[in-house]
Amino acid sequence: MNLKAHQIADIVNGNVEGDDNVSINRLSKIEDGQKGSLSFLGNSKYNKYLYTSNSSIVLINENYILESPISKTLIRVKDPNESFAKLLSVFGKNDFIKEGIDNNSKIDKSVVINSGVYFGPFSVCNKNSFIGKNVKIYSQVFIGENVKIDENTVIYPGVKIYSNTIIGKNCIIHSGTVIGSDGFGFNIDENGNQKKVTHNGNVFIGDNVEIGSNTTIDKATLGSTKISNGVKIDNLVQIAHNVTIGTNTVIAAQVGIAGSTSIGSNCMIGGQVGISGHLKIGDRVMIQAKSGVLRNFESDVSIMGYPAIKYRDYNKSYVHFKNLPDIMKKIDKFFKKNVNND
Amino acid sequence: MNLKAHQIADIVNGNVEGDDNVSINRLSKIEDGQKGSLSFLGNSKYNKYLYTSNSSIVLINENYILESPISKTLIRVKDPNESFAKLLSVFGKNDFIKEGIDNNSKIDKSVVINSGVYFGPFSVCNKNSFIGKNVKIYSQVFIGENVKIDENTVIYPGVKIYSNTIIGKNCIIHSGTVIGSDGFGFNIDENGNQKKVTHNGNVFIGDNVEIGSNTTIDKATLGSTKISNGVKIDNLVQIAHNVTIGTNTVIAAQVGIAGSTSIGSNCMIGGQVGISGHLKIGDRVMIQAKSGVLRNFESDVSIMGYPAIKYRDYNKSYVHFKNLPDIMKKIDKFFKKNVNND
Amino acid sequence: MNLKAHQIADIVNGNVEGDDNVSINRLSKIEDGQKGSLSFLGNSKYNKYLYTSNSSIVLINENYILESPISKTLIRVKDPNESFAKLLSVFGKNDFIKEGIDNNSKIDKSVVINSGVYFGPFSVCNKNSFIGKNVKIYSQVFIGENVKIDENTVIYPGVKIYSNTIIGKNCIIHSGTVIGSDGFGFNIDENGNQKKVTHNGNVFIGDNVEIGSNTTIDKATLGSTKISNGVKIDNLVQIAHNVTIGTNTVIAAQVGIAGSTSIGSNCMIGGQVGISGHLKIGDRVMIQAKSGVLRNFESDVSIMGYPAIKYRDYNKSYVHFKNLPDIMKKIDKFFKKNVNND
Repeated sequence: MNLKAHQIADIVNGNVEGDDNVSINRLSKIEDGQKGSLSFLGNSKYNKYLYTSNSSIVLINENYILESPISKTLIRVKDPNESFAKLLSVFGKNDFIKEGIDNNSKIDKSVVINSGVYFGPFSVCNKNSFIGKNVKIYSQVFIGENVKIDENTVIYPGVKIYSNTIIGKNCIIHSGTVIGSDGFGFNIDENGNQKKVTHNGNVFIGDNVEIGSNTTIDKATLGSTKISNGVKIDNLVQIAHNVTIGTNTVIAAQVGIAGSTSIGSNCMIGGQVGISGHLKIGDRVMIQAKSGVLRNFESDVSIMGYPAIKYRDYNKSYVHFKNLPDIMKKIDKFFKKNVNND
Repeated sequence: MNLKAHQIADIVNGNVEGDDNVSINRLSKIEDGQKGSLSFLGNSKYNKYLYTSNSSIVLINENYILESPISKTLIRVKDPNESFAKLLSVFGKNDFIKEGIDNNSKIDKSVVINSGVYFGPFSVCNKNSFIGKNVKIYSQVFIGENVKIDENTVIYPGVKIYSNTIIGKNCIIHSGTVIGSDGFGFNIDENGNQKKVTHNGNVFIGDNVEIGSNTTIDKATLGSTKISNGVKIDNLVQIAHNVTIGTNTVIAAQVGIAGSTSIGSNCMIGGQVGISGHLKIGDRVMIQAKSGVLRNFESDVSIMGYPAIKYRDYNKSYVHFKNLPDIMKKIDKFFKKNVNND
Repeated sequence: MNLKAHQIADIVNGNVEGDDNVSINRLSKIEDGQKGSLSFLGNSKYNKYLYTSNSSIVLINENYILESPISKTLIRVKDPNESFAKLLSVFGKNDFIKEGIDNNSKIDKSVVINSGVYFGPFSVCNKNSFIGKNVKIYSQVFIGENVKIDENTVIYPGVKIYSNTIIGKNCIIHSGTVIGSDGFGFNIDENGNQKKVTHNGNVFIGDNVEIGSNTTIDKATLGSTKISNGVKIDNLVQIAHNVTIGTNTVIAAQVGIAGSTSIGSNCMIGGQVGISGHLKIGDRVMIQAKSGVLRNFESDVSIMGYPAIKYRDYNKSYVHFKNLPDIMKKIDKFFKKNVNND
């Protein structure tokens, strides 16, 4: 992609200062800028780079006052961060215009394939599945039976989707993620052996969900493991059978949520958090990274620790934990002087 | 699958109350029941749904006394939970009756393939491997050289099995799991660089083992990393080189076990537990979720914390940890009044 | 491979004691030794096995004094551990001499393939990528567009490499690892929905890097997520967008490093450690397993805990944490006797 300064100004609704015919073909950080790249100045810490960068064009705040004249082209905008994010997505768009079914894929005759679909090499789709309009399925993807994938969803290479899974519109699922494998459930039989609980349910994923790489989501024993609209899940996350995640909740990498737990809407769950099974977590709950949640929590709390307690309380206690050697020395000394052991 | 009430009564050894000719084609939770579905009442919390559910058939306890007459068909059994689990497995069975070698797979001529095997598209099996009777290998599976997979084992899509791995009978291995990759071992050479330790061993997996999705099990430096009969391993678990896991031990999601550690039989290891290398853990040890185990433990203990200590002791200490701000305030006040700083 | 005692002595620069014509065809632990295997005695704990082992040849220290005469062949060396590691790598070498492009792979015409390359079945390589001399790519690997993989690197089955990734020389990447998936970044829009931040950067991996199984490394928003020369990364590790890892740093299994954090050289990061985003960690920092790092640390420290503090301090505090029930009993008793509640 090749864009001139005046074309970019149109996209970001900005004003060009300098040569409005100069063109760029890539985006870069201001400190790494080269001829042909566009950068932005979004943080005053980086001001000096405005003058030294080799970028051909820089987006700056409409009110920024230059400390010295510069020769490169500037585009003045209301919010350089936001404008740059917009350009990032413009540059990202032409990434995927592939269409058509690769000869090296294997799709059952009963599968419904809508218009605009791409289906990459060495991918498999089994009987009675449904692939919506403009769905893009990369290479080496497995899709079981009776799966439904709705329009505009992108499935990256190597994703494995077990039978009966339902995936909504505009979702993105990254490589290596497994959706719909059996939940982890066993009953001890009369001989003390673990007997597998059959999982007859499925996984239901709403619209606008993004799931990272190598994440695992197990199917329900009965009914559905449910990921609601707008949920964002990072890499290497474990979501067990019969879990429910409310709309727009964000889950960072390596989180584990045990069976049958229900998480509310708009929660923020930090990296490596673990949540026990059969719990109920409210809406807008913030769970600090690495916490271990062992009981229910109401909406609108921030929690931390293992077992997790209120964030403020954990931090207060931890300050004392760090001081324990000092305070204990003081206490021991006092006891030695003043108290008889009995 | 379509079953009539009297056929189900035969399967679960129960007595029909109502129309024994009514038929169902699926199982569902009692609160989600629809015409054509069978549910069960296994917990008195759900009693009210017995009267409001649209399920065509409900399994109830043989001694349950109805609060009001109902029109749906009941089947009275000794233990509704157990009977339902039985039906779940009946409904799950017809899931996999596939047989035969897909044309789009690649199997070396030297491989021994027994009767009843299914080998899915885009799967690979390299020389001198052995595939036992009725083994089902889904799509996009990789099997190295000299691998042995014994009868009735199921390997889900995208599993990667390195050379020399041995897998027993009746095992289930879910998508994305990697078995037999190199252990993580390096020696610092004279120039301060990490020099790789070659791993010449393998992974040995016994009978009736289930392994979840995206789990990793490394091969031994020498000899075998050993997973004994009946072990159950959840998703995203890491098992390092030369680890030994005793029979029937259950390992929840995201657990990590470092190199050369030996775990006994019938242990229960909670989610996100970490266990250091070169340790020895006894039999029937319960390790609470998220614990970090840094020393050996004898059999029959329950442990928690980081470093893990006895479960009861951790919880008692944690109560005081939570109270530290209060108790410290009290102590500070006392010291201020009564003790001279010196 | 079949080697005689005198050939082995040449390889490890040792002296044969006994029959120098005896031959072995495998390596084994001394306690598992059989006729035809070579073992080593590297730890005095295992001395007794020297006399009882059935190994045909044993490597021992040049100064070791026999307690009783033995019939097996000995090879005396300076450092039996090191000599055995050398033999392990000799035995591992003939593992991979495959060459050539499998008919069942799919490689774009524009891809540059150098001499000695192996490209396995059901692997994909997209346009404008570059595959260096002697690179070995196993089965079911995905390589996007504009990827560069430099000479002698080995990519195991099922690895997924997104477009624009750069991988150096002599690297090893194990099965299921995903390199270059989108970073986890969202901005809340005016309607309270999470809006995806486009990731236009890539992943850059230096020379002599080893990466375990099912690890995930996200690409940068702009510029590169950077893994420097000699870095070793274990299984199931998460490395977020824009992270930088310095040379020769070693990262154990299940570690998570959040976005834009920079780690120095020669650090040792224990299993299941979590490191927050936008931090700066110095060189030669040791981070104990399971720690949670929430602030910057200078070079040459050892840290532990959550939030991580100095290793020694954490352990001192933890001793008191374990004693809290006892000390609190003592304090409560004292307060009851001596202090009026007010």
